[in-house]
Amino acid sequence: DIACLDHHRQLRQGAPETILGASKTAIQMITIVAAMLRRDSNVLITRLDEDKAAQLLAEYPQGVYDSEARTFSLIQNPIEITGLGKILVVCAGTSDLPVAREAAETARMLGNEVEELVDVGVAGIHRLFDRLDLLRSAAVVIVVAGMEGALPSVIGGLVASPVIAVPTSVGYGASFGGIAALLGMLNSCASGVTVVNIDNGFGAACAAARINRRNSS
Amino acid sequence: DIACLDHHRQLRQGAPETILGASKTAIQMITIVAAMLRRDSNVLITRLDEDKAAQLLAEYPQGVYDSEARTFSLIQNPIEITGLGKILVVCAGTSDLPVAREAAETARMLGNEVEELVDVGVAGIHRLFDRLDLLRSAAVVIVVAGMEGALPSVIGGLVASPVIAVPTSVGYGASFGGIAALLGMLNSCASGVTVVNIDNGFGAACAAARINRRNSS
Amino acid sequence: DIACLDHHRQLRQGAPETILGASKTAIQMITIVAAMLRRDSNVLITRLDEDKAAQLLAEYPQGVYDSEARTFSLIQNPIEITGLGKILVVCAGTSDLPVAREAAETARMLGNEVEELVDVGVAGIHRLFDRLDLLRSAAVVIVVAGMEGALPSVIGGLVASPVIAVPTSVGYGASFGGIAALLGMLNSCASGVTVVNIDNGFGAACAAARINRRNSS
Amino acid sequence: DIACLDHHRQLRQGAPETILGASKTAIQMITIVAAMLRRDSNVLITRLDEDKAAQLLAEYPQGVYDSEARTFSLIQNPIEITGLGKILVVCAGTSDLPVAREAAETARMLGNEVEELVDVGVAGIHRLFDRLDLLRSAAVVIVVAGMEGALPSVIGGLVASPVIAVPTSVGYGASFGGIAALLGMLNSCASGVTVVNIDNGFGAACAAARINRRNSS
Amino acid sequence: DIACLDHHRQLRQGAPETILGASKTAIQMITIVAAMLRRDSNVLITRLDEDKAAQLLAEYPQGVYDSEARTFSLIQNPIEITGLGKILVVCAGTSDLPVAREAAETARMLGNEVEELVDVGVAGIHRLFDRLDLLRSAAVVIVVAGMEGALPSVIGGLVASPVIAVPTSVGYGASFGGIAALLGMLNSCASGVTVVNIDNGFGAACAAARINRRNSS
Amino acid sequence: DIACLDHHRQLRQGAPETILGASKTAIQMITIVAAMLRRDSNVLITRLDEDKAAQLLAEYPQGVYDSEARTFSLIQNPIEITGLGKILVVCAGTSDLPVAREAAETARMLGNEVEELVDVGVAGIHRLFDRLDLLRSAAVVIVVAGMEGALPSVIGGLVASPVIAVPTSVGYGASFGGIAALLGMLNSCASGVTVVNIDNGFGAACAAARINRRNSS
Amino acid sequence: DIACLDHHRQLRQGAPETILGASKTAIQMITIVAAMLRRDSNVLITRLDEDKAAQLLAEYPQGVYDSEARTFSLIQNPIEITGLGKILVVCAGTSDLPVAREAAETARMLGNEVEELVDVGVAGIHRLFDRLDLLRSAAVVIVVAGMEGALPSVIGGLVASPVIAVPTSVGYGASFGGIAALLGMLNSCASGVTVVNIDNGFGAACAAARINRRNSS
Amino acid sequence: DIACLDHHRQLRQGAPETILGASKTAIQMITIVAAMLRRDSNVLITRLDEDKAAQLLAEYPQGVYDSEARTFSLIQNPIEITGLGKILVVCAGTSDLPVAREAAETARMLGNEVEELVDVGVAGIHRLFDRLDLLRSAAVVIVVAGMEGALPSVIGGLVASPVIAVPTSVGYGASFGGIAALLGMLNSCASGVTVVNIDNGFGAACAAARINRRNSS
Ligand SMILES: Nc1ncnc2c1ncn2[C@@H]1O[C@H](COP(=O)(O)O)[C@@H](O)[C@H]1O
Ligand SMILES: Nc1ncnc2c1ncn2[C@@H]1O[C@H](COP(=O)(O)O)[C@@H](O)[C@H]1O
Ligand SMILES: Nc1ncnc2c1ncn2[C@@H]1O[C@H](COP(=O)(O)O)[C@@H](O)[C@H]1O
Ligand SMILES: Nc1ncnc2c1ncn2[C@@H]1O[C@H](COP(=O)(O)O)[C@@H](O)[C@H]1O
Ligand SMILES: [Mg+2]
Ligand SMILES: [Mg+2]
Ligand SMILES: [Mg+2]
Ligand SMILES: [Mg+2]
Ligand SMILES: [Mg+2]
Ligand SMILES: [Mg+2]
Ligand SMILES: [Mg+2]
Ligand SMILES: [Mg+2]
Repeated sequence: DIACLDHHRQLRQGAPETILGASKTAIQMITIVAAMLRRDSNVLITRLDEDKAAQLLAEYPQGVYDSEARTFSLIQNPIEITGLGKILVVCAGTSDLPVAREAAETARMLGNEVEELVDVGVAGIHRLFDRLDLLRSAAVVIVVAGMEGALPSVIGGLVASPVIAVPTSVGYGASFGGIAALLGMLNSCASGVTVVNIDNGFGAACAAARINRRNSS
Repeated sequence: DIACLDHHRQLRQGAPETILGASKTAIQMITIVAAMLRRDSNVLITRLDEDKAAQLLAEYPQGVYDSEARTFSLIQNPIEITGLGKILVVCAGTSDLPVAREAAETARMLGNEVEELVDVGVAGIHRLFDRLDLLRSAAVVIVVAGMEGALPSVIGGLVASPVIAVPTSVGYGASFGGIAALLGMLNSCASGVTVVNIDNGFGAACAAARINRRNSS
Repeated sequence: DIACLDHHRQLRQGAPETILGASKTAIQMITIVAAMLRRDSNVLITRLDEDKAAQLLAEYPQGVYDSEARTFSLIQNPIEITGLGKILVVCAGTSDLPVAREAAETARMLGNEVEELVDVGVAGIHRLFDRLDLLRSAAVVIVVAGMEGALPSVIGGLVASPVIAVPTSVGYGASFGGIAALLGMLNSCASGVTVVNIDNGFGAACAAARINRRNSS
Repeated sequence: DIACLDHHRQLRQGAPETILGASKTAIQMITIVAAMLRRDSNVLITRLDEDKAAQLLAEYPQGVYDSEARTFSLIQNPIEITGLGKILVVCAGTSDLPVAREAAETARMLGNEVEELVDVGVAGIHRLFDRLDLLRSAAVVIVVAGMEGALPSVIGGLVASPVIAVPTSVGYGASFGGIAALLGMLNSCASGVTVVNIDNGFGAACAAARINRRNSS
Repeated sequence: DIACLDHHRQLRQGAPETILGASKTAIQMITIVAAMLRRDSNVLITRLDEDKAAQLLAEYPQGVYDSEARTFSLIQNPIEITGLGKILVVCAGTSDLPVAREAAETARMLGNEVEELVDVGVAGIHRLFDRLDLLRSAAVVIVVAGMEGALPSVIGGLVASPVIAVPTSVGYGASFGGIAALLGMLNSCASGVTVVNIDNGFGAACAAARINRRNSS
Repeated sequence: DIACLDHHRQLRQGAPETILGASKTAIQMITIVAAMLRRDSNVLITRLDEDKAAQLLAEYPQGVYDSEARTFSLIQNPIEITGLGKILVVCAGTSDLPVAREAAETARMLGNEVEELVDVGVAGIHRLFDRLDLLRSAAVVIVVAGMEGALPSVIGGLVASPVIAVPTSVGYGASFGGIAALLGMLNSCASGVTVVNIDNGFGAACAAARINRRNSS
Repeated sequence: DIACLDHHRQLRQGAPETILGASKTAIQMITIVAAMLRRDSNVLITRLDEDKAAQLLAEYPQGVYDSEARTFSLIQNPIEITGLGKILVVCAGTSDLPVAREAAETARMLGNEVEELVDVGVAGIHRLFDRLDLLRSAAVVIVVAGMEGALPSVIGGLVASPVIAVPTSVGYGASFGGIAALLGMLNSCASGVTVVNIDNGFGAACAAARINRRNSS
Repeated sequence: DIACLDHHRQLRQGAPETILGASKTAIQMITIVAAMLRRDSNVLITRLDEDKAAQLLAEYPQGVYDSEARTFSLIQNPIEITGLGKILVVCAGTSDLPVAREAAETARMLGNEVEELVDVGVAGIHRLFDRLDLLRSAAVVIVVAGMEGALPSVIGGLVASPVIAVPTSVGYGASFGGIAALLGMLNSCASGVTVVNIDNGFGAACAAARINRRNSS
């Protein structure tokens, strides 16, 4: 057997298991999707390249592939907005868009209202200050940035809401595939910024959704 | 001049600036505390060693030094509980206690109810399962662990609330001063775990407080 | 001459030399296999890609290529089960399957009974607890996991038998091609877990076979 | 509370929890030892420096401190030899002795017959060949080496029994505190060598004990 | 002989050789200073700790030791301001002061007008915007920052003059002794920021002086 | 929207925003160029591969692609020489040419006179000494080198003008994609050498242009 | 101009400049070869892939391409054996052959008698001991090994002649492209082993040639 | 037993075993020296700190401790010059002296004529050119340098004899305890430079002695 699905996750955490497409074969994923559909679950696959997406669409034409976010989604049960506030996804440069879109797509699948703010990196910081109202209107802010990853520190100092930083592998040389941005974010002098893995838009959205559906128990 | 305090932070973010004691001299900190007291602010110093603490206590006997958490706090205005739910600080081993206590102290200073759960590492996992109710009662869970840093993944899979992982520098050899735990947490297969810097109990508490005071705007 | 085979190994260690296919040409391997067949030895090639496998199969149609494990085996002398107990190969996720299968194939070639347990990663830990009996029935447990590599710590705490951890390169970003999992395993808080190289299912099986054929001298 | 002992470990794994002394205070350890004595358990503390050892001996004069191995042991119930064969601890140079002794001490506490072979590094390889009989008489071989860590590869090629490699932090410059030896061992061309953390004599002994008490279930 | 002074440097580059005090003995430095005095040169020693400074002052009471900058200077020939404009040294936090002061001291010794701006890190970015006029009045800006090292990117986007970034080792955990800040600065999205070694206030000042004395040949 | 151009940069810094082509799609760049043309700005794209260049040339035949420098430039307003002196771009080996050419192209676009000196690495140092006059005639020297990156130290000791070092990824093995050269340059014993990111000819040229247009305010 | 050949090298060092083919275009190399032929120099290109080799052979059919060593040589002046003794190139495994052949080819071009010994890695150490006479007959020994790189330590302990170690990138996972072997060799406990860059067969041969042509001045 | 001396080394390699003092206790070394004296061997201890040296001198007053080289030598049999030519030890800065002296002391003990050239780093390269005759008179050149480690490349290009590069840990920040210098030397563009471990003056001297006593077999 190739997989042992965590069908119980919907109950424990309010969201079904997501499929990380990167190192699975199309055939493995088709098998897993079949099992999820039998359980009446919505399906989200991330990090899916175009070739495998085509094979999944051939099998499940009711699914949708977003080639920028590299996500495949198949919605059997309409998604209800259950998040309390708005999740804002900010990104530093045009090149960070795929990661930002993965975050936005995932957050929407998890029942949240999402807004996006693009290309407001710190080298032209007036672009950020022009949008202070938007920044402060969000319940959670996801900040996506590559290169030196300075944007979350600046935003973390401007808003009072939770800030989740996503380093991206955008850059070259001493960016070391996102390490520079990752370290920058982990060492943020703006207290209360938390960090996820490099290029992990999906994980940032999951964390934001946990925060946004949180009650005071 | 040696410092330019961000007095505006209380307004922007509901909490005064905290002093990172590690690389400041006692004299610098005494000066900064004086400026904060003039502004009628509460004071929290983190990463303060015993020698410098003694100098601060000599100057400000109304302050309190916690030698395990290595924090100095001086409360002029009684702290009100403004956090919506309970923040739970869990740690994997006895050796992780200083970081866990820094997190707990900071969260309390920021107006939150805090509970602690100690020495429930994954090598004897029944210890964790005995406390599932406590784990699920928290609004936010801070998980502190060194060595392989596996605890946040397990807890992240058991609760639906936000989980903030704090790697510690506990370990030796290939723990590389906390890198092993840090990487483990960044690569957590439990979706929605976010991470702060190694030994950064303070930052985890700030993030938890942001989450716990969050409204839906 | 291109190779100097260690024909003496069968005698010293009870198993013939294995061919690491990764950086050899098909022609080199065909030559080496010929030499082994002349010595009446069974043949195992690991890390063999499909192209080279085709060339080997053209030359030696009596061989078998397993495209998931990426192994080529040619059995001249039927394999006898000489291992004392059962070797259990556990893997954390579907993506770790190739490494797990390499371990299982190798262990079988070395004369052991092998069982496999797939996709029981720590984020849905009930899946593991459902199989405690199987885990405790094994003489040796090989645990294969990528990302944060936490599974061997949990299993190491649940069983009394030897546990061999195999980190895999599954993951992205700060998994650094398996470093995160490797470090997690080296720092396991479950005492008595030993570790092999990243993706080294072969080596784990060899170690398990040494253990499983061990007598008290 | 400062600790949550895994009293169940003796049952699950045939050995009580061991105390890692490195980052605990003497007072914390005295408390933990008290709890273990109440449970009628033998006590082993590792990585204990001389100062803390003195405090423990003052409290528990029936304990024994080995200043080379840096272990403290307190034996309430005489140790029975339950291991099936002999565990041989080999070390490459005089400077690796403390780690080798930690391994030997731990293996003895876990009920094994132990022998030691010292200073047989690969630069004078005849020293090793003079002792082939001893090497081949062991049920498990623990090989401790710093600098380039080549010894386990050579021994792994000479014996058929399980070989556990322990890299040490002995060396300077590009030994990087044991990384060179660790990598050497993980990449051993002798198949079936497994590795533990740098300087982790304790862990190697635990693994050897698991192997040596193993039955075929 | 212990040193071969580059007496020709004053001619080639308009400034005498500077003594890097860190790994020299006091006796070695006293000898070198004697040789420089014989050549009628001014003397600057950097990275000098208090103990060695005392020995140098005992020998050369006409020298001056700055315990924050850790510099010793002995001025035989009054320093003339030869730099064309003002060099501004900005630092992100109070803890970065020693490096900032080393830069300022060095720049002054090299004949430049110097101004300092302290504790204007990006987490409270209004502090920086309050001083835009000062920032834009400088001929060269040296920006000193630890932790995530984001300040040079923000300043680099605000001014048109050359910006030299100095990462500091201030921080802990994943700041890795200044690597996080160094990488952040090397990957700055503000084009035209150049970088010197971690904590190298001296080097930044030398570069600034080269720029500030530059003519169009 | 995919981009938020910093149109204000020309005013703040005397040069328009440049497009980093590496991780943008051709369509994204065509859109961005259109926006810049509407603002009457000159256009420079760096790190553009041949395929995308063809798409841009199809859309904007008035542009020019330099396949060695991998730059695309489109000049609407003739470039005036505004730099005060000459910028000299030196490179150590033939293999460093693409980075050197990127620097030269960029410096020219920014209004500077540029000269190039090629293949004068330190292993045949007489080649450098033959050109001392040229080296000393420059207002700013950009030094491009891979492998051990020693050239900037030698040149930094020979000239009095500002030296900007650009490490390249030329080399193999322990050059680690330019890390060896980068570290060499950061640790230069020639005081006053500053460094940019690996392969960042563009950034070096921007810094040189800042220096070369600098006035004493 | 694209190159500034060091024609003087033959005089200074008794051998012409060699062309590192890896990051040069075929056209660049054809130009450089032309310049060398005009100077009546023999030509050696290393790290040349098959495609570029074809272009060079088309232009210079008198040249010879060795596809295993990846070298192109063009001999105008017959090579005389000027080396005093024999250079022995030993390699640990079949996969290390390309690097070993590059070393052998280069050493021959530099006027040395060369012998090769293949596939005598330390896991089957009797293979090495069978050839002690050969090992001890060499004036210089070049030892090529990947994975843990232990072979030079063993050989360094067996012979009295100079031993040059060449780490190769053969291996996977924690071999990190040859870092494990490199570190192993740098930390060799056999005193007097020196090391060159990963995969640098060429450099090892140059060093061996320097040693072998050495006189006592 | 604590040591197994390689008494056979004098025969195999013409020099007795040397004692690496760094991680041995004084008592261990006294025991080892006693064993060597009984064998009528000369004694060399390296990396010996002042405290342990005092204990050794108390026991063996006929020994000599060199506090700069940190070596202890005890000569029972007068040393004969058996090396063919002169070994020249060059160092880049005053701070590199201890490593240079360790190399010189060791080379002398091994029967070689040694000369030293100090403080001729590449930032003032005329100092090196003033000594070309000396450089070219040596049979082997050992080049010791910290920081960027550029000196061996320059010298390697100037002489035809073998060049052994020793990186030192002199420097700070991104010198990473000698890594920058080590990488610089491994990537030297001067062909035929070989490298030893960071600060390993001893190993460089052993290699130089092997070269210098070499005959053509
Ligand atoms: N020398 C050692 N190296 C690694 N792990 C150890 C060592 N000694 C004890 N341990 C483990 O560390 C755990 C103790 O962690 P803690 O809860 O912090 O006391 C024990 O369960 C032991 O299995
Ligand atoms: N400074 C040094 N650096 C590296 N290796 C050394 C040094 N001094 C002595 N050695 C080697 O270290 C070995 C001693 O290791 P051990 O068995 O621990 O005494 C000797 O055989 C020497 O060849
Ligand atoms: N333990 C801590 N870890 C990380 N950051 C801290 C810590 N304590 C305080 N800080 C932050 O560090 C900043 C102080 O930097 P400085 O200007 O150098 O005083 C404060 O604004 C805090 O937000
Ligand atoms: N703080 C510093 N950081 C880096 N380099 C320095 C510093 N102070 C002095 N130097 C340089 O280090 C060189 C001294 O090296 P040495 O020959 O060992 O004295 C001088 O030529 C200075 O240019
Ligand atoms: Mg942009
Ligand atoms: Mg515990
Ligand atoms: Mg799964
Ligand atoms: Mg020894
Ligand atoms: Mg501050
Ligand atoms: Mg060249
Ligand atoms: Mg082989
Ligand atoms: Mg000097």
